[in-house]
Amino acid sequence: MNINGKHYHTIWVKENNPETIQIIDQRSLPFEFKIKNLKTIENTFQAIKEMWVRGAPLIGVTAAYGMYLGLSGLSENGNLKNQIIDFAKYLESSRPTAVNLKFAIDMVLEKISGTEFLKEKIELAFKTANQLKVNEIENCRLIGENGFPLIEKISKAKKGETVNILTHCNAGWLACVDYGTATAPIYLAHEKGIKIHVWVDETRPRNQGARLTAYELGQQGVPHTVITDNTGGLLMQKDLVDMVIVGSDRTSANGDVANKIGTYLKALAAHDNNIPFYVALPLSTIDWSINDGIKEIPIEQRDHNEVKYVEGWNKNKITKVRIMPENSSVANYGFDITPAKYVTALITEKGICGANKPDIEKLRK
Amino acid sequence: MNINGKHYHTIWVKENNPETIQIIDQRSLPFEFKIKNLKTIENTFQAIKEMWVRGAPLIGVTAAYGMYLGLSGLSENGNLKNQIIDFAKYLESSRPTAVNLKFAIDMVLEKISGTEFLKEKIELAFKTANQLKVNEIENCRLIGENGFPLIEKISKAKKGETVNILTHCNAGWLACVDYGTATAPIYLAHEKGIKIHVWVDETRPRNQGARLTAYELGQQGVPHTVITDNTGGLLMQKDLVDMVIVGSDRTSANGDVANKIGTYLKALAAHDNNIPFYVALPLSTIDWSINDGIKEIPIEQRDHNEVKYVEGWNKNKITKVRIMPENSSVANYGFDITPAKYVTALITEKGICGANKPDIEKLRK
Repeated sequence: MNINGKHYHTIWVKENNPETIQIIDQRSLPFEFKIKNLKTIENTFQAIKEMWVRGAPLIGVTAAYGMYLGLSGLSENGNLKNQIIDFAKYLESSRPTAVNLKFAIDMVLEKISGTEFLKEKIELAFKTANQLKVNEIENCRLIGENGFPLIEKISKAKKGETVNILTHCNAGWLACVDYGTATAPIYLAHEKGIKIHVWVDETRPRNQGARLTAYELGQQGVPHTVITDNTGGLLMQKDLVDMVIVGSDRTSANGDVANKIGTYLKALAAHDNNIPFYVALPLSTIDWSINDGIKEIPIEQRDHNEVKYVEGWNKNKITKVRIMPENSSVANYGFDITPAKYVTALITEKGICGANKPDIEKLRK
Repeated sequence: MNINGKHYHTIWVKENNPETIQIIDQRSLPFEFKIKNLKTIENTFQAIKEMWVRGAPLIGVTAAYGMYLGLSGLSENGNLKNQIIDFAKYLESSRPTAVNLKFAIDMVLEKISGTEFLKEKIELAFKTANQLKVNEIENCRLIGENGFPLIEKISKAKKGETVNILTHCNAGWLACVDYGTATAPIYLAHEKGIKIHVWVDETRPRNQGARLTAYELGQQGVPHTVITDNTGGLLMQKDLVDMVIVGSDRTSANGDVANKIGTYLKALAAHDNNIPFYVALPLSTIDWSINDGIKEIPIEQRDHNEVKYVEGWNKNKITKVRIMPENSSVANYGFDITPAKYVTALITEKGICGANKPDIEKLRK
C-alpha cells in the first residue's frame, strides 16, 4: 500500500543488494517514517523482539529472511547442521508465542534440507522467504476479494450512503506484507469507489489502532475517525456502525476467536445491536487442535509498563508519560476470546464461512 | 477519606477564615496533591469550568459556595436582585450539562429569597452550602450502608476469599465530598475487614480511573489493579470478577443508566458471564421526566484533544503526548447508556431497588 504516495511492502530485498533486507520501523509510526536495514540474523532477531516489525504474517516472513541472512553469514567450515538448528532456536525465541514465526522457520528448514551445500541452502532460504512473502500478499488479496461483497451489499442496501465499519487494533497491511486482513476488504471497497468510513478503536495499551490503523487508512485516503476503546458500544446504540471487521491471532477449530484484548466487548455490543461481526484471517491462523477457545487458548500477559505509561509524540520526539499512581498494581493481558456464537462469519483466503466446525472444515480441504 | 494519612473532604471552609473555601485541585492528581483557595465567585467559576473540581455532587456543592462568595463580595448599594440572577446564570454556564449544578444554585436562590437584607442572604447562602455538603456526605454514607450487604454476601458465599469488584471511571469520594457513590460500599467493606480487590478501568479518554480511583483506593489501603478499558471482558470470562459497581450521571425513570462512555460494554460482559452489575447513585440523579434512556438522554461530545493527546507525568511535570496521526479525525462522546435490562439493581441512599419503574418509584416516596 502507499506511504507518502509511494507503494511499499512492510519488508523487501534492497534493490541491487540482496544481502540487505529492508523493513519499515513500526516503532516510530505514525510520527516518523523510517526504513531499517537488516544485514544479519542478529538484526532480524532484534527487529522481531523489539517490535520494529509486528503482526503474525510479517513476523513469519521476517524470520524466514532471518534464516537466509544467518546462512549467508556462514563459512563452509563450521558444523552446518548444528548451526542451522541454533539459528532456528534463536529466531524462535524472539517472540515465543507467535505461531507464524515457527511455521515460517520450519518451512525454511524443510526446503533447505534438500541439499548439503551451503551455497544452495542460502539460495533455497532466499527463495523460500520470497515465496512466503508472495503467499502472504496473495492470501490478503484474496481475503479482500472475499470480504468485499459484504461491504458492497450493505452499500447497496443503504443506497450508496456511507458504510460505517468499526475495527479494533491493527489487522492492516503493516501487520502483514500488503493489503492486511481486516483492512483488505476495506481497501478494495475504497478502491472501487464505495463510500466507506472506518471507526478506529485506539486499542490500549499499545494504541495500534490510533498509531498504525489510522496512519494506514490516512495514507490510503480512506475516511476514518479514531475513538477510544470505550466508544464502540455507544456508536452501535446510535446506529452509527454497519459492520465490524477485526483480525485474529488464533482461532479455534470451532470458531472461537482470540484477538487483541477488547475484541470480545465489541462483539457483544454488535450482537446486542444486530450488527454483523466479521473476522478476517488466513486459514493458517486456525488452530485445528483446539475446540474450546475460552478454556484452551492461553492468554499471554505482557509488560505492565505498557499500561502504566502511554507513549506518544512530544516536542518532536517519542515520549512516555505515566498515567497512574506509581504504586498501584497493573494487569496487562494481551488478548481475549470472542465466542463463536458472536461471530457472524470468518473471511478467509478460500472464502467466507460460518464460525462453526463443519463450515470451517469445508474450507480446510 | 484519607490522603497521606490525613482526613479530607473534597471541599471545605478554611479554618478560622470563612471567607475562603478550599478545594483539592484534582487536575494534578495523582501526581501532586495541591489545595486551592476560592475567594471569589470568579474563582469558583474557574474551578468548575476548568475541572479543578469534577463529579456531579461536588460541582453542586462548589457552586453553592460560589453563590455565597459572590454575595459576600457585594456592597448594599447595587441592584441586589439583578446581581443574584446574574450570579446564578454565570455559575450555571460553567458546566451547562451538570444537572446538580442547577439544582444546588436553585436551592441557594430559594433559601436566600426569605430575606431582603444582604447580610442575612450571605449567612443563608453559607448555611445552605454547608447543608448541601452535609447532605451529600450523608447520601454517600447511606449508599455505602445499603450496598455493603451485597459485598458481604459474596464474601460469605466465597467463604471469605477475596471479592473482586470491577469499577469504571471515578465514582469515588473525589467526585463527591466523602465516601463516593460506587466506592462507598467498597470502603465500608474494607473498613469492616472483608477481603476485597478492585479492578480499576483506566477510563479513557481522561483516565479518571487510572488517575483518581486508583489514587483514592491506594490512599485508603484498598487492594486494586489498574487495567485498560479493554480488559474487563476477559477478566469476567476467566471468573476473576465477582461484581461490577459503577456510578451514574443520569438515570431514567425506567432504570436506563447514563454513565461514563464504556460502562455499557462492561454491563454486556457482566450479563454474558452472569455477574451482577450494580449502579450506585443518589436519587437526585434520577431524571423522572425520561422513560427511554437510549432515545431521550442526549450524549455530550467533548474536546477532541482528550482523545488525540494523553496527559501524564514526565520529568516531574504534567505532559501531554499525541498518540495518533496529526490529521486523523476524532470523535469523543462523553457517556453511553446501559439499558435497564442489564442492570441488576440500583444502590441508593434510600435502599436497593430493581432497575425498573415500579421499583424505583417506591423509593421516591
